[in-house]
Amino acid sequence: MKVIIVGGVAGGASCAARLRRLDEKIQILMVERGPFVSYANCGLPYHVGGSIENESSLLVATEQMFKGLFMVDCRTNCEVIAVNSKKKTVDLKNHITGEVTIEKYDKLVLSPGAAPIRPPLPGIDLPGIFSVRTIADAKNMRAWLDRDIDRSVGNSITGVDAVSKPRHAVVIGGGFIGLEMVENLAERGLEVTLIEKLTQVMPPLDPEMARVVEIYLKKHNIKLELGDGLAGFRNGANGGLEVLTEKGKAYPADIVVMAIGVKPETELAKMAGIEIGEKGGIRVNKQMITSDPDILAVGDAVEVKDFVTGQWALIPLAGPANRQGRIAADVLAGRKSKYRGTQGTSICKIFGAAISQTGVSEKTLKKLGDKDYEKIYMLSNSHAGYYPGAKMLVIKFLFRKSNGKVLGAQVLGEDGVPKRIDSLAMAIQSGSTVYDLEESELCYAPPFGSAKDPVNFMGMIAANMLNGDEPIAHWDSLGDNFLLDVRNPPELAVESVPGAYNIPLPQLRARLSELPRDREIAVFCRSGQRSYYATRILLLNGFKARNISGGVTIRSLSK
Amino acid sequence: MKVIIVGGVAGGASCAARLRRLDEKIQILMVERGPFVSYANCGLPYHVGGSIENESSLLVATEQMFKGLFMVDCRTNCEVIAVNSKKKTVDLKNHITGEVTIEKYDKLVLSPGAAPIRPPLPGIDLPGIFSVRTIADAKNMRAWLDRDIDRSVGNSITGVDAVSKPRHAVVIGGGFIGLEMVENLAERGLEVTLIEKLTQVMPPLDPEMARVVEIYLKKHNIKLELGDGLAGFRNGANGGLEVLTEKGKAYPADIVVMAIGVKPETELAKMAGIEIGEKGGIRVNKQMITSDPDILAVGDAVEVKDFVTGQWALIPLAGPANRQGRIAADVLAGRKSKYRGTQGTSICKIFGAAISQTGVSEKTLKKLGDKDYEKIYMLSNSHAGYYPGAKMLVIKFLFRKSNGKVLGAQVLGEDGVPKRIDSLAMAIQSGSTVYDLEESELCYAPPFGSAKDPVNFMGMIAANMLNGDEPIAHWDSLGDNFLLDVRNPPELAVESVPGAYNIPLPQLRARLSELPRDREIAVFCRSGQRSYYATRILLLNGFKARNISGGVTIRSLSK
Repeated sequence: MKVIIVGGVAGGASCAARLRRLDEKIQILMVERGPFVSYANCGLPYHVGGSIENESSLLVATEQMFKGLFMVDCRTNCEVIAVNSKKKTVDLKNHITGEVTIEKYDKLVLSPGAAPIRPPLPGIDLPGIFSVRTIADAKNMRAWLDRDIDRSVGNSITGVDAVSKPRHAVVIGGGFIGLEMVENLAERGLEVTLIEKLTQVMPPLDPEMARVVEIYLKKHNIKLELGDGLAGFRNGANGGLEVLTEKGKAYPADIVVMAIGVKPETELAKMAGIEIGEKGGIRVNKQMITSDPDILAVGDAVEVKDFVTGQWALIPLAGPANRQGRIAADVLAGRKSKYRGTQGTSICKIFGAAISQTGVSEKTLKKLGDKDYEKIYMLSNSHAGYYPGAKMLVIKFLFRKSNGKVLGAQVLGEDGVPKRIDSLAMAIQSGSTVYDLEESELCYAPPFGSAKDPVNFMGMIAANMLNGDEPIAHWDSLGDNFLLDVRNPPELAVESVPGAYNIPLPQLRARLSELPRDREIAVFCRSGQRSYYATRILLLNGFKARNISGGVTIRSLSK
Repeated sequence: MKVIIVGGVAGGASCAARLRRLDEKIQILMVERGPFVSYANCGLPYHVGGSIENESSLLVATEQMFKGLFMVDCRTNCEVIAVNSKKKTVDLKNHITGEVTIEKYDKLVLSPGAAPIRPPLPGIDLPGIFSVRTIADAKNMRAWLDRDIDRSVGNSITGVDAVSKPRHAVVIGGGFIGLEMVENLAERGLEVTLIEKLTQVMPPLDPEMARVVEIYLKKHNIKLELGDGLAGFRNGANGGLEVLTEKGKAYPADIVVMAIGVKPETELAKMAGIEIGEKGGIRVNKQMITSDPDILAVGDAVEVKDFVTGQWALIPLAGPANRQGRIAADVLAGRKSKYRGTQGTSICKIFGAAISQTGVSEKTLKKLGDKDYEKIYMLSNSHAGYYPGAKMLVIKFLFRKSNGKVLGAQVLGEDGVPKRIDSLAMAIQSGSTVYDLEESELCYAPPFGSAKDPVNFMGMIAANMLNGDEPIAHWDSLGDNFLLDVRNPPELAVESVPGAYNIPLPQLRARLSELPRDREIAVFCRSGQRSYYATRILLLNGFKARNISGGVTIRSLSK
């Protein structure tokens, strides 16, 4: 049997290595159009930024290793330019010699990845506009950033600072790669402007959570231009680049990074006549087999089933790509492995913070018309507040109203983020409920957590909500509620809420007579904790009451 | 209804606060013999060390808060000195006035905690010997550490360095508190000797994993005296303390910290005539109710069911104590809450590293005669190796041979420990298997993890083992195996294994003829990864082979 694998990075490389471990006899040909196999594309922004200084660090496994250790006929600088699925052949072009050969396969694995989107806008091919996909991209960016720019051209004040390194960067697109590039360019000392067509950064997050990230970016001197699309590029008067937006603005830039998303590479799949899904990715079954039983596909080029919603989705992440490659190898070796779907667990470092998420967002639930869910917001210390270095975690947590199942979470903060998002990712995988989270036994010592971990609190608050102990309200869905603010007077000066009646929590029991018994009272404080105590006191004293989740902190983000 | 809660720290305080949130009418009397309620006893070592400078930081909730906000009749410096369970009364002694009053209860909650063990050895009451339980203990230690010692007494070289602060500390007992005290005393600049009766530190760990901790302690200049018990104390010639051991040694000490474990406080329970369990703790059912239906008990004083083994155990941890307090409150308020048992998830900071564990150890499995388990060792980067700051994680992982269920894990390292131990803690709670871990979707970006997380690798290696793809061997159970070392020759110089035959992995396929076909080959490398590849090559070429888990790294720890 001969297997041809198209693409030698995450999914393809995993597939090749695993397949050889399962079978010493199968003939494996792995084709990579670039000069490197199995390189760390996730590391490219950090190579541009300089925290990964050596290009060689990015080479996880070499062509030599694949050839020698894995007995894979590994061909770099080689591209499959055509597939004939009837004859079961591919046309292979050697980019060094220009030669095209025809290779037969018994099974074909497509792992071509997804290409950065570069819309055909005016000026898109001007020098200085980069995408982030290959080691060559990173190398070119580094060279571009290291060059001297003659600032005297078209500059009335000549002689002053006539030559300098690039100073202004514009990053277009505020997703994972966009934010990683923002960080890395800023850490190289550039002034960075981030332009994003949506009215929020980090599209997988819900908007109010993205706001936390936006505030953080501004605090780190990033210029944010949200809600404005890219119109094109031109050379400005001084010879530098200018980024033009749909709103008619022009942003000067010494370097531009395009990070507006990726698109599955499906040309070969289309040539092979295999099915493309509704989202534009290659359609595969749980065995990673396409509509042609002899062609499998893995990685960013395929559509996956969203593990939580059951919907088809494009979720280009390295972890899933690697697992899919492994499963494709198992299937090729005659095993029964199945891909369980992708739940979209992700994390992104931005300066000192981490933006993380797992499972479904409220945005997606709304899009699907799913109303069987509830949400809560939490502000928690990353570890015991009395131990130095505790940082605030901002958490949004989604769960099924009908059965308490964990649906998704978004966790932001400068400390302790992976601990929580991974616990929640595990909870989603195992179908755990909020009642399980109440009882989860997570590691605790003052430098790492709290005796009741934020994950426990999520479970407790959600369970309290579901069993009626703590009805929850949200700013965006308040009705005719009586608004009760239980903060202390000095806090009101920081953020006052129009129309809210203030009774500080410690005075509440003594002042119950001031509150209406015929209206539902929506209680809030800074974060939702004191208002929880207040809600309980009100309910137990016969009032109708709800706690506004996340308090004024979330209000300020939702505006 | 009137509830008396004995003990106002973790379990008791949680119970009181929750009970008030569930019922505004119940009369709650919470009695604490010390001057503070709800203080952070987990923070005491750090207060001694100075990283938590202010005592007030340790006060999580004050007496005032319990009285005002929670309407709890909170009495500090008050001790329940007798229980009459027939009459349902307690004798309450006010330590300030000396007065003793009798209080009636409808329900009694015992949360007295566990007391540090202080064996009645000669000299145990000499000044300078401390335990770590209360804020007063920490205060006394700080004062003792701040005092000047006259070094001229009994010193032939007078005048030289006549007066100094304490310099030599002896910590007795190498568990959680012992190690935290070691760290904190060392960080105050003291030379620290750790004496432990067992032949390993951190008794919950398996010995080979404890060895990693021991090496780390020595690297940080801690003097370790393992396998030697405490015999007593005396004043030495120069007036300072000396710690005497069973082996007849004498260790001079300017301060001694006793941390040889804790013992459940069961005096009141015995007075009340309620059942004490086989481990010496108060016996409770899942509702935290003792053998007397009107007496509940929570926290370090009770025996819990080990969630994994189903055995009764003493597991004094803050997280479980808090959850038990909450459950007792639920039960008192007529709710159906149940305690699911304790799985022993724990973490301990020691200098820059973390020692963590969840579920069962091999030690415990052996003690129970349980043979339906397997183990693997792993050495993994805490995050992508190409991103700066990756540290080695040392992992031991235990799982059921018959069904793949996760049983326990021990994870040590300087980075990324909570992320892994909490994922595994969640896996144990939900009854997940190694096959689930293969597919877990944990957060990944180069600064935080790897596309295949160590948790995924644990699952993959274990699954490979269970399905026969990768038979595993261990150094401690090798039989008549042919030992094959697939490291490269320069590595053999670092640690050579007598009797092992060396074929570097890249040469293996070409040199198969050198290997025996009639004997099982046990393959090893440094960590177990290259030997995995080698094992697969051997098996697929018709040899009998096993991979020695953890390679020479684990061998050096098991010696």
